[in-house]
Amino acid sequence: MRKRQQSEPKAVLRQIDASKAYRILESGPIVMVCTHDGARPNIMTMGFHMMVQHAPPLIACVIGPWDHSFAALRETGQCVLAVPGADLARTVVDVGNCSGAEVDKFERFGLATAEPAKLSAPLLSDCLYNIECIVHDDTLVDKYQLFVLEVIAAWCNDVRKERRCLHHHGDGTFTADGERFDLRDRMTLWKQFQVDL
Amino acid sequence: MRKRQQSEPKAVLRQIDASKAYRILESGPIVMVCTHDGARPNIMTMGFHMMVQHAPPLIACVIGPWDHSFAALRETGQCVLAVPGADLARTVVDVGNCSGAEVDKFERFGLATAEPAKLSAPLLSDCLYNIECIVHDDTLVDKYQLFVLEVIAAWCNDVRKERRCLHHHGDGTFTADGERFDLRDRMTLWKQFQVDL
Repeated sequence: MRKRQQSEPKAVLRQIDASKAYRILESGPIVMVCTHDGARPNIMTMGFHMMVQHAPPLIACVIGPWDHSFAALRETGQCVLAVPGADLARTVVDVGNCSGAEVDKFERFGLATAEPAKLSAPLLSDCLYNIECIVHDDTLVDKYQLFVLEVIAAWCNDVRKERRCLHHHGDGTFTADGERFDLRDRMTLWKQFQVDL
Repeated sequence: MRKRQQSEPKAVLRQIDASKAYRILESGPIVMVCTHDGARPNIMTMGFHMMVQHAPPLIACVIGPWDHSFAALRETGQCVLAVPGADLARTVVDVGNCSGAEVDKFERFGLATAEPAKLSAPLLSDCLYNIECIVHDDTLVDKYQLFVLEVIAAWCNDVRKERRCLHHHGDGTFTADGERFDLRDRMTLWKQFQVDL
């Protein structure tokens, strides 16, 4: 295995509390999923995911045997969810339209990686957020390819200028985050969750 | 039970194919969930949901016993997911910050309803989309309050001028759909899914 160019995560990535994953994922951003099968890393694009629980932070997602990443996720029980900014829209689509069985996507798309805190799968240092996950429950994998993941570490890139996430509306059409609504003062029942990233 | 004011769904709601649910939900819009416990309807706000499968269209979501709607969903196995436009942001938050055990939310918030095609829970005629669902799998309900729902009917309101959906970034902050990216021509592996709503 050729040594990949890796940036020091602390140079661009700030570690944040794993419990803040819901602030990143609840809005439904398109994500890229990094795995490592022991021989080499791979990456795919994914839109079927959700938060399941705040504490410990659990995420559900759908990754199937039709995805080259499935085998590595099954075997290693680990993956990184990386949340790209809107400036990476074309990369997000192109990563999702070729297979790691045929190409080295990191090389093809010039993706800079960084060492994760706890996993073997790489972080994507040019993404806004990286979430390190381990498989927590695979009860529904055979039936629906539905994994329940637990967040064990999370990272924020404060350097990227483009802060808008992308949302997939199906079929290759996306919107970026638009007008912001701050309605925190109306969250009377859920005040305990008001924290900054 | 007082008869509620209901609009004729066909007046404002156009039925669309259930298989298009992923076009509505994959981007992660905040949704309102309507249930009916046999005596009266209720409504809650929900951000933990995802698409699971295109055909038949399956959705996963998290609704727990701390939600007044939980009992009705458990007993009837039915709910409607209604997707509000950005003009309903305050209503979305306020609906999520009171309990149907204490107030009639339809009356308090002046929510117009319409008859669903197949369920007892009402449609919300002022929302952009309504998705009628039945519980398909409750394997993970006790453990994670995770329901797998099957879409059996779906509706689009073409009349509302505000077309932007809302995405919850946690803690009462939302963004509306912003800049649009049309990258359909790069979806070379997934052409079969290119259909209009």
